[in-house]
This record gives sequence, C-alpha cells and structure tokens, in this order.
Amino acid sequence: MEQLRFDDRVAVVTGAGGGLGKEYALLLASRGAKVVVNDLGGGRDGSGKSTFADAVVQEIKSKGGVAVADYNSVVEGEKIIKTAIDNFGRIDILINNAGILRDKSFTKMSDQDWDLIQAVHVKGAFKTTHAAWEIFRKQKYGRVIMTSSNAGLYGNFGQANYSAAKMGLVGLASTLAIEGAKYGIKVNTIVPTAASRLTEDILPPDMFQAMKPQLIAPVVAYMVHESFPENGIIIDSTLGYATKLHLVRSNGASLRKKPADIVTIESVKEAWPEVVNMNNAYHLDKITDVTVDLVQKIQDFEERSKLDSEKEAYWSTYKYDSKDLLTYALGVGASVVNPSDLKFLYESHENFEALPTYFILPGMVMESPIVGKSMPPGKHADFTNILHGEQYIEFLSDFPGTDGQFTIRNYVVDILDKGSSAVAIVNSEVFQDKTLVFRTQQHIFVLGQGGFGGPRNSSKSNNVLPAPKRAPDAVVEQRTSEDQAALYRLSGDLNPLHIDPSVATVAGHPKPILHGLASLGFSVRHVLVKYGGNNSSNVKAVKARFAKPVLPGQTLVTEMWVEGSRVHFQTKTKETGNIVISGAYVDLKSVAKNETAASSEPNQPASSSSAMKSDGLFAKIDEQVKANPSQAKSIGAVFLYNITNNGKTVKQWTLDLKSGVVHEGAPKSGKADTTMTVSDEDLIGIASGTLNPQTAYLKGKLKISGNIMFAQKLGPLLKSGSKL
Amino acid sequence: MEQLRFDDRVAVVTGAGGGLGKEYALLLASRGAKVVVNDLGGGRDGSGKSTFADAVVQEIKSKGGVAVADYNSVVEGEKIIKTAIDNFGRIDILINNAGILRDKSFTKMSDQDWDLIQAVHVKGAFKTTHAAWEIFRKQKYGRVIMTSSNAGLYGNFGQANYSAAKMGLVGLASTLAIEGAKYGIKVNTIVPTAASRLTEDILPPDMFQAMKPQLIAPVVAYMVHESFPENGIIIDSTLGYATKLHLVRSNGASLRKKPADIVTIESVKEAWPEVVNMNNAYHLDKITDVTVDLVQKIQDFEERSKLDSEKEAYWSTYKYDSKDLLTYALGVGASVVNPSDLKFLYESHENFEALPTYFILPGMVMESPIVGKSMPPGKHADFTNILHGEQYIEFLSDFPGTDGQFTIRNYVVDILDKGSSAVAIVNSEVFQDKTLVFRTQQHIFVLGQGGFGGPRNSSKSNNVLPAPKRAPDAVVEQRTSEDQAALYRLSGDLNPLHIDPSVATVAGHPKPILHGLASLGFSVRHVLVKYGGNNSSNVKAVKARFAKPVLPGQTLVTEMWVEGSRVHFQTKTKETGNIVISGAYVDLKSVAKNETAASSEPNQPASSSSAMKSDGLFAKIDEQVKANPSQAKSIGAVFLYNITNNGKTVKQWTLDLKSGVVHEGAPKSGKADTTMTVSDEDLIGIASGTLNPQTAYLKGKLKISGNIMFAQKLGPLLKSGSKL
Repeated sequence: MEQLRFDDRVAVVTGAGGGLGKEYALLLASRGAKVVVNDLGGGRDGSGKSTFADAVVQEIKSKGGVAVADYNSVVEGEKIIKTAIDNFGRIDILINNAGILRDKSFTKMSDQDWDLIQAVHVKGAFKTTHAAWEIFRKQKYGRVIMTSSNAGLYGNFGQANYSAAKMGLVGLASTLAIEGAKYGIKVNTIVPTAASRLTEDILPPDMFQAMKPQLIAPVVAYMVHESFPENGIIIDSTLGYATKLHLVRSNGASLRKKPADIVTIESVKEAWPEVVNMNNAYHLDKITDVTVDLVQKIQDFEERSKLDSEKEAYWSTYKYDSKDLLTYALGVGASVVNPSDLKFLYESHENFEALPTYFILPGMVMESPIVGKSMPPGKHADFTNILHGEQYIEFLSDFPGTDGQFTIRNYVVDILDKGSSAVAIVNSEVFQDKTLVFRTQQHIFVLGQGGFGGPRNSSKSNNVLPAPKRAPDAVVEQRTSEDQAALYRLSGDLNPLHIDPSVATVAGHPKPILHGLASLGFSVRHVLVKYGGNNSSNVKAVKARFAKPVLPGQTLVTEMWVEGSRVHFQTKTKETGNIVISGAYVDLKSVAKNETAASSEPNQPASSSSAMKSDGLFAKIDEQVKANPSQAKSIGAVFLYNITNNGKTVKQWTLDLKSGVVHEGAPKSGKADTTMTVSDEDLIGIASGTLNPQTAYLKGKLKISGNIMFAQKLGPLLKSGSKL
Repeated sequence: MEQLRFDDRVAVVTGAGGGLGKEYALLLASRGAKVVVNDLGGGRDGSGKSTFADAVVQEIKSKGGVAVADYNSVVEGEKIIKTAIDNFGRIDILINNAGILRDKSFTKMSDQDWDLIQAVHVKGAFKTTHAAWEIFRKQKYGRVIMTSSNAGLYGNFGQANYSAAKMGLVGLASTLAIEGAKYGIKVNTIVPTAASRLTEDILPPDMFQAMKPQLIAPVVAYMVHESFPENGIIIDSTLGYATKLHLVRSNGASLRKKPADIVTIESVKEAWPEVVNMNNAYHLDKITDVTVDLVQKIQDFEERSKLDSEKEAYWSTYKYDSKDLLTYALGVGASVVNPSDLKFLYESHENFEALPTYFILPGMVMESPIVGKSMPPGKHADFTNILHGEQYIEFLSDFPGTDGQFTIRNYVVDILDKGSSAVAIVNSEVFQDKTLVFRTQQHIFVLGQGGFGGPRNSSKSNNVLPAPKRAPDAVVEQRTSEDQAALYRLSGDLNPLHIDPSVATVAGHPKPILHGLASLGFSVRHVLVKYGGNNSSNVKAVKARFAKPVLPGQTLVTEMWVEGSRVHFQTKTKETGNIVISGAYVDLKSVAKNETAASSEPNQPASSSSAMKSDGLFAKIDEQVKANPSQAKSIGAVFLYNITNNGKTVKQWTLDLKSGVVHEGAPKSGKADTTMTVSDEDLIGIASGTLNPQTAYLKGKLKISGNIMFAQKLGPLLKSGSKL
C-alpha cells in the first residue's frame, strides 16, 4: 500500500509532552505534518510545569520534521490554535488528547475533584475545537479526535468525574460530526487503553508490558488522515487491536395492550421482560431514525390493535430462504426424476420458485397458545389433545418470492362444538411489507373437548367441498418414501409422532405416520403438474381435510375433477383404498389442459425499479470500465446482474464488456453470457469484502447461470478499483 | 398485579414544576411517596422565577398526598436534599430531571451557552446525587434516575453543549451504578422523548399530540420502585413504548499480521473493514470484561500466529445443531427402515449422535482462497479446476456432541506435482473451547496445473492403503436414491454439478453426480454397523480416495476387510462394477464382531459438573416445591432434567415430585417418569419467558422422553412462582 502522508497538513496534539500524545505527534511529523506539540504539565494529576513539549519538538526536528511547542492550557484552547496559525498559517488536524485524573470514590469526591476533570477534559476539548471550527468550516476540511475511555463507556469504580467527562466527549463528538459533515470536517472518538493499574491487575505481565502507545498511534493517525472514511464513530484500540462500538436498541415493547389503555406502573412491569430483551437489538444511525422507527412501531401497534379489536391475536414472524424451499420440496416428493420438479429443487434454476403449499407453514400455530386460550370454560387444548383437521390457503397478492420474511397475525375465529370434540378455526393473515400476501385457515380438532353447547358451523369457515360423483378426470400416483416423514420433519414439524415408534404405538398407529401436510404437498404438486401448468403462481387457493393417516412408504393416489377453474381432488392410499385427503380442491387462475408442464416466465423485474444500495456500485463499475476500456473489453463477455429483494428480481444491470458499456436493465441486444442473481444486501456484502463471493456462490446466495468461467474473470477487474 | 406502592418512601424530583417532572411527582405521591417538588424557574431557557412547584404541591395535597416545594437550584443540590431531610427525615429516591436548553450551532456557541448547560445538567446531577449518596449508603437503599436524551446518544444539530451534557450523565450513571451496587443503590438512565420541534417535524400530528408525560412517568416510577431489578441501564421511552439501549462492540481486528510486526498507518487501513464490521457485534457488561475479552483475543492471535508461523492459515468457524445432523444422516442414506439408523435420524432418541463422517464438513475448504494462494508461480486454482481427491478425518478428543461450535485452522501442507495435475494437501484442525477435537485432511486435485517440478509425495500426507488381496470379510449393499444428491446438497455443498443437468453434461457426466462425501458417508455407515457396534464414538479415523463418480440411483457395494482394529474398505457401484472409493479404511477403538448394533450408553453427564446458569432456577424450584409441598405432590411424578452444553449432558437435576424433593443428579431410586433434555441457555430462555416451551419442544430445543403428559402438568406449578 502507498504510504499515507500528511504533507502540508498542520496538526495540533494536546497533551503531547509524553505518552500517547507524544506518539501521535512523532508519527504525524514523520509523515510530513507540521505539528503543534501542546503540553501543560508533567504530573499525572496535572500539577507542575515541564519542558516535555520542547523535548518532543526537538526529537521531531532531529528526524527532519517540523514542530513547535505550546504550553497553554486546553481551557484556553484558542491560544493553542493560535500557535498553529501563527507558526504554520493553518490547522487541519486537532487531536484532543490532554487529560488528567482525580480518582476518588464518589463519597469522597469534592467539588474540586469534579470541576477540574470536567474543565480539562470537556471544557478543554470544547475550547480547542471551537477555536478551530471556524477555520475548518472556511477551508472545508478538518479532522478532530476526541479521546474517551472505557471508564466512560462502562463506568469504573472511583471515576465518577472521569466517566462523566469521557462519555460527555462522545456526545460532543456525535453532534460535531453532524454539524461538520457538510464542511468536510470529520469528528471521531478514540478509546485508547493504556497501561494502568486497572489493566495491570488483569493483564498477563508480558501483555501489560506490551501495552505501548506505538500500537495505538497509527490508529489515530489513520483516523485523522484525509482518506479516513468514517465520521462520528467510536474506536477502542490497544495492543495492536481495534474495535468499533455503537449503541443498539432492543425491539422494546408497548407498555399497554391497546392504544386506548392508560400506561400504569404495573403495565410497565408486565412489559419489562420484552423491553429489556436485547435478542434482536439493532443500531440506528441518527436521531431522526429513532423517531421514524418509533412512528413505525406505534403505527404497527395501532394497526394491530384495530385488527385485533374483536379477536385477540397472536403475532409472529417467519423467515425463509431457498434452502427451506428445497428441503420442503423433497419432503413433499418432488424428485429430480421428474424434469418438471427441478424448478423446485434447484435454487439457481431459471424458474426456481416455491411450491404453493410451502406457504401453509408460516401460518402453522400448533405450537402457539391461542387455541388453549380460546377454549370455553372448563375445556382445554394443548398439544397432547389437538389434531390438524383441515387446511386452507388463499393467495391474495403476488406469489411470494424464493426468500423473504413475513409478519403473521394468527387468531381463533370460532370454536365449534362437534359433540365429543371441539374444532378451533384459526385464521392466519400473512403480511409482507404491510401487504396481505396470503391467508391460511386451520381447523384444529380438540379431542374430547366438545359438548359445551357451542355452534356446529361457522360462517367464517372455508369449508371442504364434495368431489363430483363421476369418475375422476385424471389420476396421479406416487409412492412416498419410507423416510418421507423423517425428511418432511426437516421442514419444522418435529412432532415425535412422525418419527418415534413408541410414540406412534401409544397413539394407536403401527408405525410413525406421515404428516398430513406432507400428503397434501404431494397431491397439490400432482394437481399443479396436471392442470396448473406446473406454475405455482397459477394457484389461487387450496383446501383439504385430513381424513386418515398415511404411513410412509404407502402410495398416494390423487384423483382430480376439473370444474371451471376449480380442480376438486381427493387422495387415497393405494395399499388400503382409504381416502386420506377428502373434500379438497385447488382454485387456479387458469386451467392448463396440457399435461406437459407449461414453461413459466423466468423471474422478471418489476417495471419501475426503486433505488437500491448497489446502484452506487454499478456507478463505480461504470467509471472503472470507462477508465480502463481495453482491460474491460479484454474480458469480452456480457454479464447480467439480477438484483433481488425478498427473493424477487427488482432491478437488472448489464455489464456489456464486449462494447464496454454498463447500463440498467437487460442486455440491449443478444443474451448475457453469464447471469448472476444476488440480493442487493449480499452484493453490497461481496463488494465491501464482508462476504466472500465463492462462499456466496457455494451457499446459494450468489446464483450464476450461463458461462461460469467468465464470472471468474470478472472478479479481478472489478476488485482492482471499484471493490465489486 | 398488586399495585406497586411507595409508602414511607421520600422522593426528590428536580425540575418538577411542570412537564415530565411534575408528572413524576404526581404519580409517586399518588402511590404513597412523600415528594420534594423542586423547581427553579419557568422559562424553557431557565430564566425567571415561578411558583409552579407550589401549584404541584397543592395538587398533590388536594388528592390526599404529601409533598413540599423547593426552589433551590440544582447546582446547590445539597440544599434540595436538605429540604427532604428537614421535612420528611429521609430520602429514598432522587430523580434528576431539571434541565434547560441553549441550542446554537457550534460556530455561534458561546462559553456561556456551554457553561450554563454543563452546570445545570451535569454539575446539578452531580451535586444532588452527591448530597444524597452518603444517606443512601448508610441506609443501604437508594434509587437514582439520570435524564439523558437521544440528542446525547445520537448527536443533534445545534446541541453540542446539550449532547455533551446528556451523554456525560450516562457516564456518571454507569460509575455510580457500580459504586452503589453493594449498598442497595440503583442508578439508571431515562431517555424521555418529549414533544419538541424535532419530533413535531417528523411525527404525524396526532402522534405528536399524544406525546404526553403521563405515558413516560410510569416507566420512571417503575425504575425507582424497590422491585426494579436493573442497575446501570439506559431506557428510552415515549408514547407508551419503552426500549433498552446498550453499547456493542465489533469483533474487531488485529492491526498486524503477526505479533512481531509493527503496526503502521497502512496496516491499520488494511484491517479497517474488519475493525468496523458490526455483523457479530456483542455487548460487554463491565470494564473488566473488556480487558478479559481483549486478553482472550490477543492470546488467540498469538497462539494462532505461533501455529501459523510456518504455514499461512485460514481460520474459520462452524456452527451446527441437531437438525444439521438429521439432514446429513438422510443425505448419506440413513433410513428409518433400519432400526439401527434411528439414533441418527431422531433428535430425541436416547442415543442420538452424529455420524462420524458429518465432522468432515467443518474442514471443507473448497470455497476458501487458500489453495489458490498456495499454488506455485504460474499455476492457479479456483473452483472451476479443482476436484476433491481424498479425505481423511481423525478424532483426537471426545467425540463431538449433537450441537456446538468449532474454530477451524485450515492450511495447505504441501502442493504435490503429479505430472499433468497438482495436488494440494489441506489440513484442517478443528477446535472446541481451545481443545483440538479432530483434524481432517483433504487432497485436492488441481487439474492441468502440474509439471512445476514439485515433489510427488509428502511425509505429511495421510495416505490411502491398499485393500488386502483376499475376498472381503463382509459386504454391505445399499441403493442410493435418485434424489440422493439433491438431498445431500442440503448439507451445504450446493455445487451445481450435483443438480444441474447442463453443468453435468459440460463436465462429461450423463447426469448430475453424487457428492463423493455422500458415498463415503454411506460406506462408513456400513462399516460402523458391521464392525463398529453402530457407535460413532468408536471411530478413531477414516481415510478414503474418491476414485470415480457415482450417479444417484446406483447401488453402493461396500466391501470390508478386518485387520486388527482397522477395517479396510472399498466401494463399488453394483451397476458398473467400478471402484468408486478406493484404498479406504476406518480405524476403530474396538472391533465389534457382532453384526447387530451394540447398544451404546445413553448420554451421561461428566462426573464433575460445573456451575450452570440454570442452577439458580433449580434452587428457586426447590424453594417453590418446599413452599407448596401438597401442590407439588399432587403432580406425583419424577422428572429428570438433562442440562446440555455443546450438545452433551453436563449436569442433571431431578424433580422428584412424588417425594417432594429437588436435587442434582439422576433420581436416587427408580426411573424418571419424564426426562427433559435442554441446553442451559435454552432453559434460561424458557424460564425468563423469551422462549416458549412448546416452541422449544417443537423446534427440537427441548427434548422430552417418557410420559409427555406429565411435562404438561409441570408447567403451571413452576410458572406460578419460580418462572420456570
């Protein structure tokens, strides 16, 4: 790497008579900076006078550097800045390093102990920085370092005064970073850990000995270099190690159940475990983000409260990715033996998509407490007495992508009284980015809990429909594997009934049974191939009743009847003739009478593409290609990037290295030699070096089709300059 | 919930003439506290005098409460505390709420603007708290609130003075929390967002209107209640919402390659992306933890540097859980058809364990850059020209558990010159908690990159061994599934060669081929059942060469020869007679000649069990059982908890609710009715309410064997008091 220089820069370092400050001064001077070596006194407590600064200046000069000594106190910071102007005509860098200690337990801390520490650290940094600020603004350039301490960030016994001062500087730096940004002024905080009593007690002796200022100075020097990219950050450094710190916030909690409720001390206490749960804590960058974030949460809370005004709902989230889809597809019998199934089994297939029944999973609430809570008095439901009776799913918006996250509202619509048993009807409304994407409904049998005088039917139930009386219009047979249940379990339902022979015996089965939803997945796949053009997004709704259990290894026979755009179906096991799925149907957008799988369109981006983080990268690549046209053309291939969000392509970029052109959209003529599909976020990760492209490829995050050799060639060109 | 009261408590609230402070005073008084209502002036800028405090006192009294007004300035905080003592004889609660603003852009900020804000906010809080501190210490009780602001936490334009002051209070609170802890003094920080110009600009009007102090006061009241559990935390609250904040640190980076290197500005710049990578940021609780954490990192760095002094190594981490083991077991042909395989397919099986070949995966480096970097000049390797040639694994410590995390050192041992091709020998050393648990070695063929005059052999190579000439001692056949490769891919190797017909065609195969490691998994399973007692921990080492590709659907024939404790094997495909795995062997601890699967011992805890977080929970359960013996005995069952770490049982607890006894270890007589296996961490999650037990059960995090109905009964008893 080229040496990072400070030629023609003027730096002020306070407290530079020894220790860290001296090291900063020496290092900057050795790299060409003219340095004001400020130092007041020698003692650690700030007492006495010294000529230490002169010695440092002498050392700099002896090495051919330029420096001047300054003995003003930082509380008269304007005098120190004046020394820079008077001697060198300008100032570019200010390192606020001067500091003293007055450690006392809080009980014994006097006003003087307090005031002195505040004056030197906080007021001092204010004064020097304030004096330099107008100059920085006018010249549109400045670098400021505040010096904080882990004693401030974490607190430390006997340092109440020092903790307050050191944390105060972090606050000052935050605001100055904001105010200086548009003037090219960057203000950052260093947290240097020096050899001290504290560290001496904890560190191994050789490590304590090694705690040298020389190991920290290069960090601070980089932080005041013109190439330093950050502003307003906190860096802890010692012993040749550096770490960034920032604040994160918990997801937090609403302190009341509904917006109309008042907040009480008791409701706060009740919400507290969620308030302080840092499991999904996240960082916000600026104060306006805090407000925006809050507005979002309050609005969510209000919207949910409105939705939940009639029925108490249980909200959950669900995240999935392409690997989940592959696991599910294998679990419901998709096989590479059928070429039409490959699109469900291969994440880089050009028509890769989820099976429609996969999306039943986000609404599964067998594990949630809502059914139990909704039972009539004297009746109970828990996972030992419930059975999945019926299932419905209805797609209400665009078919979901191949990865993404949902927010789900689950609630009990009705509890039916079927005599000996009860039936809980549970609705799940599944949202993505505030849009209701699909909804599911489960009928959950609660064994032995009927007879409470409730209704037998509900107007809110999506009911099964009888199959037509005629012979089926089509029949598809497929044998399940002996390991089908073991495999389907990987999609999340680990109920031992499906794997543990002794549990199955207790439940009255000859062996562990197949999941009802697995059989349903098989049958809907059969319908999809037969009448749906093998296109998942052709499915509008699916309904089914689980009539009898299936044993792994049995052959499923799906019988179908077409009525308009509805395909009625029922499923039998060939070995027994039992109907295992009854009253079922798939509603299609259009029936494809052709039995061969219709070729669906490859993933196309939305017409109006929104701004993506990767836009800037492609702009840089464009620059790079323009700067090195011959290098680019030597690759001689056309690359297409599909940028995805929630598993859908939302933007395309073409790198036409035959013509040396980079543009948004698909290639203007011909086809790309190599197509790369990657999420905006992962592409940024690759470009910034936090995600290795080979790892991304082998983990399925970066999908490459076409000529993979070209992709290899692309790397070096793009990495050389633009970091992509 | 019972009302949270403040009877006999005396509270001082500064700045209580209006706004938030007034609300705090009213709320505390309404719950029985005697309140000192301190207020200086009326104007937002601190100007003028007022009788606001009197009005608040009047309001409190009119509602039957007890309060007194105080008009001292917080900078004379001792006078305010004296008011409490003079009037009520004590002080228990101090809410530092008084504050003013002097917003100015930094350029225009005068010394007076700066000093006034520091005096009122920081010095004021110091003075009041200092005056109360000795009293708190003597009575061994105190509750202090510091008031910070998002302007301090994030910075805000025009508030340099205020940001510094507000962040300073966070630092002060941190140290006071530490100093006060042993005296029953708790010091916490509230970040209240009030209706202001800032929020007015961003918030929807109705939300701005709703930003009432009444919504924040109950939070602060809870934070000063005697039942409040936290100390030294930051809570942001507004609009009936509350959020906790804390600092997190990046993993950071060493700023040099080796301990002997010097740190330069350039080496800092090179390490910077890793320094500021917050992806795996984590929180530390106190300043000593920072040092301990650093020592750990530096020692790791030094140890790694020593290990890496000869060979440049690539360090990685690998995390796995029981679901990964199930996925892998299915991928290598374990089947519920074979009862002996169930222990690899069912996470709650009493002998659940990993297949030994699973642990080859953490060492896989096909995606890493190390082979490419180690090639001789003029030769290159990337994932388009490499093939997995041979594999070795050797277990060096206890067989790994069913979930855990490894740290792996990968390095190239040698590059062999095999004429037309090169062979890279890559070692992986796999550590868990600093112990070398096992190591693997890969021979990676680099096609067409030989002929550089290198060695043909290496002393560091673990070589294949020829099979004895005699007929095999045993043969096991198993057909692979047509979907075997599609299934094995779920274990992480997504190379399209194993799924994409067109990629397979280009590579010269009739269809996508099975992963070599999948075939190896089959054969080692065969050896394990035949000669290893079906016990993974009986395996010491495995070596194999991948001689030819296998097509999914072909039948693998594993031929075995026993020589002492070594089982030589080779694998053929039945359909072609080709040897696909050659020169292979499994070294066993002891050969079990018995073909039937030996029953291995269930997971036993280590003899000396270390302190676990859940110990405290069982102590609480013990109290609970002793307090309600009849309720406990009404359950009348014996429960055994296996507490796991890294997937191994490390401690057991018995809840004998027949005798009403809780003790460490297994039941003293008889067998448990219900056994629950759960990690220490997950058990804490369940107890603290962050992990739903039904969810834990259905996700396989909580494993229950025996009578599951009893487990259901246990819930209410334990939840009622001890929160377990």
